[in-house]
Amino acid sequence: MNKPADNLRVVLCRPTHPGNIGAAARAMKTMGLSQLVLVNPKRFPDPDADARASGAQDVLEQAQVVASLDDALAGTVLAAGLSARRRDLPHVQLDPRQAASLLTEEARRGPVALVFGTEMSGLTIEEIGKCRLLVSIPANPSYSSLNLAAAVQVMAYEIRLALETAVPPRFAPEPAAFEDIEELYRHLEQVLMEIGFLDPDNPRRLMQRLRRLFARSGLEKEEVNILRGVLNAVQKR
Amino acid sequence: MNKPADNLRVVLCRPTHPGNIGAAARAMKTMGLSQLVLVNPKRFPDPDADARASGAQDVLEQAQVVASLDDALAGTVLAAGLSARRRDLPHVQLDPRQAASLLTEEARRGPVALVFGTEMSGLTIEEIGKCRLLVSIPANPSYSSLNLAAAVQVMAYEIRLALETAVPPRFAPEPAAFEDIEELYRHLEQVLMEIGFLDPDNPRRLMQRLRRLFARSGLEKEEVNILRGVLNAVQKR
Repeated sequence: MNKPADNLRVVLCRPTHPGNIGAAARAMKTMGLSQLVLVNPKRFPDPDADARASGAQDVLEQAQVVASLDDALAGTVLAAGLSARRRDLPHVQLDPRQAASLLTEEARRGPVALVFGTEMSGLTIEEIGKCRLLVSIPANPSYSSLNLAAAVQVMAYEIRLALETAVPPRFAPEPAAFEDIEELYRHLEQVLMEIGFLDPDNPRRLMQRLRRLFARSGLEKEEVNILRGVLNAVQKR
Repeated sequence: MNKPADNLRVVLCRPTHPGNIGAAARAMKTMGLSQLVLVNPKRFPDPDADARASGAQDVLEQAQVVASLDDALAGTVLAAGLSARRRDLPHVQLDPRQAASLLTEEARRGPVALVFGTEMSGLTIEEIGKCRLLVSIPANPSYSSLNLAAAVQVMAYEIRLALETAVPPRFAPEPAAFEDIEELYRHLEQVLMEIGFLDPDNPRRLMQRLRRLFARSGLEKEEVNILRGVLNAVQKR
């Protein structure tokens, strides 16, 4: 991707399971992020991290290991911490989309960080205090415990959407022209009469219904040719 | 959550790693989904699935194991398959947000399915052919391989957002069920052979093209009846 993505660090505080570090690296790379910072990981490097990273080994190899969240956030202009929604905190609490929008905007100007807490208990009050924003992923109130790497995946996905300002054009086949489609309907009507399915004295909105069906699909040029071919084949019998 | 969430099945085709099944169950439950269907899992039940499911053991216990994708999709009114973006496929390709919006809307009327392929290679062409929509998660073009459970997490997250923001449904006619549409395709293929339009020795992707056309339109129950009537009338001549 581009400069803003390189300015966005993912910070994992005290991760317990190396598998989650590897899975987080993979989640990041699939969305074009590469700056991983680990604060006091319990085990790292580790074969479990490598295994779960799959093709994102490079993200693991470049990961920085630091001793404190202060070190991880050094130089950042904005840090957003992930947390379950809580009422006892004075922070601005955003949803992932709002947070991604703010983070990518700031990342055009300087380093920003997304901060994730340890697996079992999340960010401490002290760690949250070092973040300017809090982000909560909407979740099932009776079971809101996303896996660490799954939370990284959701946030990285929203970051990517926010960065994708211009969507590349989709492949689109040539649409059929109006006249060709009208010709098709005439041909279809003719054949339906020939095979006795459409009674001209009692048409019962059949053609209207078929027009509606094909209109919904948005016929392509080649599809009209195929359908005309089918109608010709019916007539030849 | 509510009724639409209960109408939404997550279908995993031929999952290889039981850990991914457990992680997918957890991803689902965090977003309020509970209907998991497994098509020919390599190992299930399995301690790795249990471990990664964490607090979502109930989703695993209720999971249905079936022998074919047809069984998994029985009764559904809409199936959306996950796939990397590809140009050789005829389908409507949506992003997760668009797909979530459509799926949750249809889920107010009947069962819908999100279909995920096997870890290494995704959905086969045949499996894709049974889905009306394709969904592509935006990703890094040079490494787009999301972990299976991570992809489930992203889709389930978008589903939850769509359900939280859903507007009341507009009036819409009754959609055709999966089996009825498959029956229509079989009948159509039969007739195309009888009239000499489809050469079984050289089918040239004809049925794939026709599936795509009708998939785009989203067939209604009554439309399937009309088309079956047309096919019967052709056969009688």
